[in-house]
Amino acid sequence: MTTDLVAAIDIGGTKIAGALLDAEGTLLERVQVPTPARERAEHVLAAVVEVVHRLTASAGWARVRAVGIGSAGPVDAQTGTVSPVNIPGWRDYPLVEAVRAAAGGLPVTLIGDGAAIAAGEHWRGAARGRDNVLCMVVSTGVGGGLVLDGRLRAGPSGNAGHIGHISVELDGERCPCGGRGCVEGIASGTAIARWARENGWRPADGGDSSAAALADAARAGDQTALAAYRRSARALAAAVAATATLVELDTVVIGGGVAQAGQVLFAPLTEALADYAALPYVRHLEIRPAELGTDAGLVGAAAACRAGVAG
Amino acid sequence: MTTDLVAAIDIGGTKIAGALLDAEGTLLERVQVPTPARERAEHVLAAVVEVVHRLTASAGWARVRAVGIGSAGPVDAQTGTVSPVNIPGWRDYPLVEAVRAAAGGLPVTLIGDGAAIAAGEHWRGAARGRDNVLCMVVSTGVGGGLVLDGRLRAGPSGNAGHIGHISVELDGERCPCGGRGCVEGIASGTAIARWARENGWRPADGGDSSAAALADAARAGDQTALAAYRRSARALAAAVAATATLVELDTVVIGGGVAQAGQVLFAPLTEALADYAALPYVRHLEIRPAELGTDAGLVGAAAACRAGVAG
Repeated sequence: MTTDLVAAIDIGGTKIAGALLDAEGTLLERVQVPTPARERAEHVLAAVVEVVHRLTASAGWARVRAVGIGSAGPVDAQTGTVSPVNIPGWRDYPLVEAVRAAAGGLPVTLIGDGAAIAAGEHWRGAARGRDNVLCMVVSTGVGGGLVLDGRLRAGPSGNAGHIGHISVELDGERCPCGGRGCVEGIASGTAIARWARENGWRPADGGDSSAAALADAARAGDQTALAAYRRSARALAAAVAATATLVELDTVVIGGGVAQAGQVLFAPLTEALADYAALPYVRHLEIRPAELGTDAGLVGAAAACRAGVAG
Repeated sequence: MTTDLVAAIDIGGTKIAGALLDAEGTLLERVQVPTPARERAEHVLAAVVEVVHRLTASAGWARVRAVGIGSAGPVDAQTGTVSPVNIPGWRDYPLVEAVRAAAGGLPVTLIGDGAAIAAGEHWRGAARGRDNVLCMVVSTGVGGGLVLDGRLRAGPSGNAGHIGHISVELDGERCPCGGRGCVEGIASGTAIARWARENGWRPADGGDSSAAALADAARAGDQTALAAYRRSARALAAAVAATATLVELDTVVIGGGVAQAGQVLFAPLTEALADYAALPYVRHLEIRPAELGTDAGLVGAAAACRAGVAG
C-alpha cells in the first residue's frame, strides 16, 4: 500500500496547482495554471479540470487512490461547495462533485487553504512532531489552520483556524468580511503598507510601496516603517495569544510574504506576545517560521485526504 | 459496571463541593464546605480532605472507581498541580497527589473549572447532543470551556476555553492576569457594575450596586445601565465570534450570575454577534442559557473522569 499515491489540488486567487504525492509527502508531479479569478464559474472550473486532467494523464495516476483539495475560503466541506472571497464567480459552487467527476470517481476531501497549510507544515514542515499548533499565513491576507492533539482540526466545514477574521479591536474598522476590527485589517501586508502610507511613509524614488519594500525601509531604520510592522505584530500577538488561551498551543508557525520580513516582524511579535499571553499555560509558545513555502497547501491537501480528515 | 460511581470535587474561591455521581450523572451524595481562600496552603487542603472524607464515609463509596476534580484555575493537569488566582496560598500546589491519598489511591482526573462546566453542560445540560460548543460562565469573572467534535477539549494542561482572558481591545486596560484588553475586564459582572458607576449610575437608595441591581435598573429603562450591559455584550460577542471563527462552533451556552439578567444581556449579545460573526460558517450559532446552575462543575468533573479526559 505504500506505493499508493494521492492527488492534491491547491486553489488560490492567483494560481491553481496540482500534484501527485507519495506516502512520504514527496511531490512526484506538479502542474500549475493561473486562476481566471474574475471570470464566470465554468471558466474557473475549466482551469481546475485542466489541472486534474494533466494529473490523470501522468504516469503515476494509476496508483492514485484519493484526491485532496485545499481551496481559498470560505469552503463548506459538508456540502462540498466553495465560495472563495477572491473568486466571485464561485458562490456555493459544487467543486467536490466536479473534481470527483474529472478524477474518475475517486474520493475527494475538501478543506480550506489555511487548514491545508497547517496540515502540510504538520506533516512535512515546521510543525512536525508538535501536537498543538497554529499555522498562520501573513500575506496580502491573513489565514491559518489548527492542529490539536496531533491531528488537523479543520472543523465540520473545513474553515477552522481562520485567524485573520477574529476581532482584536472592539470598535475597529468594518472588515470586508462583515466583521469589525479583524486581524487581517491591521496585520496583513496590505494593511501594513496602507497604514505606513497614511502615516507619511513614501517609498524611495516614488517606487515600490509594498510591505516588502516597507520591510527594507524598516531595516534601514525608518521609524514609520518600524511602527507599521510593530502595529501588525501587536495585532498578530493578540490573536495568537487568544488562540493559545482558547485551545492551548505549544507551537505557532508563521509563513507568507510578510513573514519574509524576518526580525522586522518577529522581534516586535515576540515582545508583544509578552503583553497578551500572560497566563502560565500560554507563556511558553514557540514561534517558528514556516518551512514549506508555496508547496504547503499541496502537501496539506494530500495529508488531509490520506487522513480522511473533515472534522 | 453501570452501578459504578465516580466522586467529583468542585473547588472554587468561595466553596468546595463534593458529590458521588452515577453513570447517568445523578448526584447521589453532596457535601460542601466554605473555601478558606485566604489561609495557608495546608488549611485549604484540609477543607478539600474534609470533603473527600465525608464522601468516603458515605454508603456509596465502595462503588466509587475514580475521582474527578474541577478546580479554579490555572490548573496543570500534566503535573497535577493548581495555582488558582483566587486562592493565593496554592501555587503549583500538588492537589492531585493529596486527593489521591485522601481517596485511598483511586485514579484522579484534574481539569479547570471552565472545562468542567463545559463537560457538565455537554453531558447533562444545555449542550447535550451538540458537537462543537463553547460554554461560558459570566459572573464576577468570565470563564469557559470547549467541546469539540463531541468531546471535551480541556487541552494538555486542562485550561482550554478560558475565554475571559482573550484580548478584544488591542490597546485596552492592563488585566490582573498580565494581559491587556481581556474580555473579563469589560464583560464580567464586576466590570459592568464598575463601568456603570464610573458613568454616573447610582443605585436606588444608595444601596445595592451589583450587576444584578444594575440589571433591574436596565429593565426599568435606565440608559446608563442599558449601555453598561450593551458594552459587556459587545465584548462577549467579539470573543464568541473569535472562538467560532477559530474552532467552528454550533452552540454557545452561557451561564453565571450575569446571564441571569436575561434579555438585558442576551438581546444586545445577539445583536452584537451580527457585528462580529459575519463569515458564513460562523453565522448560525445558537446561544442557549446554561441548565445545570451551580452543579455544572460537579457533573462535569464526573464526566471528565469517566471519559479519562485530560487532552
